[in-house]
Amino acid sequence: MLLAVRATATYELQDESFAFLMVEPPLSGARHRVVEERLTTTPTRSCELRRDLYGNPQRHLIAPKGRFSFEFSATVEADPNAELPEHAAELPPHELPAEALVYTLPSRYCESDLLGRMAQTEFGRLPPGGGRVRAVAEWVRGHVEYRYGTSGPTTSARDTAIQRVGVCRDFAHLVIAFCRALDIPARYVSGYALGLEPPDFHGFVQVYLGEAWHNIDATTGCLRPALVPIAVGRDAADAAMMTLWTPHEVVEQAVEVRRVAE
Amino acid sequence: MLLAVRATATYELQDESFAFLMVEPPLSGARHRVVEERLTTTPTRSCELRRDLYGNPQRHLIAPKGRFSFEFSATVEADPNAELPEHAAELPPHELPAEALVYTLPSRYCESDLLGRMAQTEFGRLPPGGGRVRAVAEWVRGHVEYRYGTSGPTTSARDTAIQRVGVCRDFAHLVIAFCRALDIPARYVSGYALGLEPPDFHGFVQVYLGEAWHNIDATTGCLRPALVPIAVGRDAADAAMMTLWTPHEVVEQAVEVRRVAE
Amino acid sequence: MLLAVRATATYELQDESFAFLMVEPPLSGARHRVVEERLTTTPTRSCELRRDLYGNPQRHLIAPKGRFSFEFSATVEADPNAELPEHAAELPPHELPAEALVYTLPSRYCESDLLGRMAQTEFGRLPPGGGRVRAVAEWVRGHVEYRYGTSGPTTSARDTAIQRVGVCRDFAHLVIAFCRALDIPARYVSGYALGLEPPDFHGFVQVYLGEAWHNIDATTGCLRPALVPIAVGRDAADAAMMTLWTPHEVVEQAVEVRRVAE
Amino acid sequence: MLLAVRATATYELQDESFAFLMVEPPLSGARHRVVEERLTTTPTRSCELRRDLYGNPQRHLIAPKGRFSFEFSATVEADPNAELPEHAAELPPHELPAEALVYTLPSRYCESDLLGRMAQTEFGRLPPGGGRVRAVAEWVRGHVEYRYGTSGPTTSARDTAIQRVGVCRDFAHLVIAFCRALDIPARYVSGYALGLEPPDFHGFVQVYLGEAWHNIDATTGCLRPALVPIAVGRDAADAAMMTLWTPHEVVEQAVEVRRVAE
Repeated sequence: MLLAVRATATYELQDESFAFLMVEPPLSGARHRVVEERLTTTPTRSCELRRDLYGNPQRHLIAPKGRFSFEFSATVEADPNAELPEHAAELPPHELPAEALVYTLPSRYCESDLLGRMAQTEFGRLPPGGGRVRAVAEWVRGHVEYRYGTSGPTTSARDTAIQRVGVCRDFAHLVIAFCRALDIPARYVSGYALGLEPPDFHGFVQVYLGEAWHNIDATTGCLRPALVPIAVGRDAADAAMMTLWTPHEVVEQAVEVRRVAE
Repeated sequence: MLLAVRATATYELQDESFAFLMVEPPLSGARHRVVEERLTTTPTRSCELRRDLYGNPQRHLIAPKGRFSFEFSATVEADPNAELPEHAAELPPHELPAEALVYTLPSRYCESDLLGRMAQTEFGRLPPGGGRVRAVAEWVRGHVEYRYGTSGPTTSARDTAIQRVGVCRDFAHLVIAFCRALDIPARYVSGYALGLEPPDFHGFVQVYLGEAWHNIDATTGCLRPALVPIAVGRDAADAAMMTLWTPHEVVEQAVEVRRVAE
Repeated sequence: MLLAVRATATYELQDESFAFLMVEPPLSGARHRVVEERLTTTPTRSCELRRDLYGNPQRHLIAPKGRFSFEFSATVEADPNAELPEHAAELPPHELPAEALVYTLPSRYCESDLLGRMAQTEFGRLPPGGGRVRAVAEWVRGHVEYRYGTSGPTTSARDTAIQRVGVCRDFAHLVIAFCRALDIPARYVSGYALGLEPPDFHGFVQVYLGEAWHNIDATTGCLRPALVPIAVGRDAADAAMMTLWTPHEVVEQAVEVRRVAE
Repeated sequence: MLLAVRATATYELQDESFAFLMVEPPLSGARHRVVEERLTTTPTRSCELRRDLYGNPQRHLIAPKGRFSFEFSATVEADPNAELPEHAAELPPHELPAEALVYTLPSRYCESDLLGRMAQTEFGRLPPGGGRVRAVAEWVRGHVEYRYGTSGPTTSARDTAIQRVGVCRDFAHLVIAFCRALDIPARYVSGYALGLEPPDFHGFVQVYLGEAWHNIDATTGCLRPALVPIAVGRDAADAAMMTLWTPHEVVEQAVEVRRVAE
């Protein structure tokens, strides 16, 4: 299907600042292709596209003091989002590629090393594979309340496992932590989601089963119609939409994802 | 029933030290009566019996440098431990006495303020009363593994809720935290237990339902035949068996609880 | 000096609710005397004055569904607040009364058991007594930034010790935790402060030195001209101004403390 | 200088297990060259050398049930360890390569996002560069006690920042967290150290200053004569010497690092 994606934001910066921007999906991914895209920013001293260690496109700019804004729009050809197959296989560790293995390790917001017994108690007796990962996501959806303003940038899976409240980012971190505790590679994805209400940047999960990455999103019981990844990483620390080195205020931010006729 | 209780310990102290000892049950309690007791310590410069804020008998001594040991033995007439009645009633807050109200508040090792949603999700829909408290204890027993050496003196309910492993102290703290999150007064009890294997000091819980304190012990599915409280408090911080102000080693410690013929 | 104290608040309650209110200072304390006071509440089904375990006056009411408000005003004769004397003596544990001893133990928001080495490193070599406590308060003031909106109701001394930001409550908790780690009894006090800008309920600390409780307030380098305690406890968990058992919103809250002519 | 390095370990495995072994330094690094090396393991079903995401050599094996042991020995030509230069420059973020940028982000055991204000208070006013990083290491050495058995595999910089005790791994994590909070890329290195007493695997830090990685080791005030890296990563989670997927006991483990004549 064809999607029109648009993200804009305006900041008030106390000083000229370096800025890292991650709002541009990779030009082509496993389940999407960018047909056309345009990024405009208020005049900046430099604007360079780079790749981080995980392969994500990252825009490095120098943003001016005062008002700074960007507008990104793209047309993206995206496959419909697919249900995680019940029988997608968990692989033994030595069959995992390096690129997946790193996602079995604990990270800042996914303390899988603390959640080992909890994961075993809750999911250890389920048959391995896609069905087990779906059970993890269902557990998280059933045990965690979705509510804005209850968690913050330092909230981690350890917190969410007991406080039982959060937003998409927290849901994703808890799913990831449980999966890793079960030795299933799981990574954080920031991206665009069709059908999110209210529209916003979205955080969800990909697990590596049967030699491919599969989407899983614990914030909904239905399938999101389409998910377009922007950046992947060990958790949200690796996938910040915008990083600024100067004190600033967010004046305005908006995201739009629409299906358009082909 | 009649119990013979005996507790001994030997310490190696680097210096003369203040010592607070709490191994002597109150002479009479709701469900026990001390028939005779004897405490001997290696020569100490002073030895005074006092009461802490919670009413617990506390022995204040000055222990000598080097070897220091105590031996406490008692004969105690104890009622058989009773099952927490299914229908014992949860009281509204303004009907609780001050002495029970303090036990609805969070404390060092029972962070009920963090566990509110978890308690509501797991137990909020159960009918209030004794049956609900028993469900809490059963949940803790079913979800937490009992294992020595996995927790320490700073482990709290928050940790146990996610790490899912611990000893009697940790089981008690988690039960207490859940109960308080449900507005049920719950306090920590250190005491002697008949039938504990291996024998040791025991930590369990009392909840205030229907105008009385009731025992609840999440470490066992059966009823402990008898429980004799030594000290109660908001959590284990208030009920340390021995507090020493000088660096020291525990050389030996033993507890014995036997049923004797009347 | 003579103070006019006034506290008002309005809540919107989803349902009739129990309410515990602690805004009334004890009629007479070590350094103040209530000359006259008046509490008015919107019609309530019951309103009873009780004492909690720590001796604090606590008003138990049943608040109506919908708008609920109270207004408390008092005239208080208060001694000027006194500097904590440099030479006020730390007492050995067995000379502390039960009423002070409980305040050497860790509590929910004052994890002194975790901060022992930090307290020893920073303050262990200072001469014991009032001067050391003042050094603790100065350290906290010098190392923690005062800023609204950076901490919340579950923030504890452990958090503040590393995040280094908070409000009066957090400053108090950290001072308390350090003092207890040094075996100095320290308790949390909620109260009225003259000269607070903007006016609000205040949280500060009392330490027990030389057989008396002394005020210490880490949020200011100068001496607050007068402090009138409302409630004392192990930490803020024991001294909540208002406790409601029903979901609600705070519509308005205001505090006023003025010096008046005698 | 020429070093003879030897590492051995024996495990008792409850079952056949995958095993990842990281004891082999890269054949050539910025400051060392492996002259010869030999790895022997008890018969294993497979033994393959791979590279993880960070470029570390990782041995993947299938270890047999029961006794399993390995012996690694190597001769390594190593440059003498060099003092971190006082004037090595901190680079602005957009001049950092992707390979260094990832090491400015928080990780499982280095919660730099929590330590921002603490890092600013303690080190924010120092002139940037190598001297500042050395001040960080000196602070950690001066404020944290080195002591075995006080920390565990889940201990993180957040814990060490307040508990102030730990081993080389904890010292490294805290240095890393502070550096990242100052926007200085810092990574964890597991390796062999000449002169460690008792001999063991060592954990230390590398910071990226002036376009190169520099060693810094907070556990000693003197310079370690030589450090040979085995693996680098965001923290110790990425650099485990041995990972086993089956319950097991460590029967024996030994490390030896000696200087030999050329």
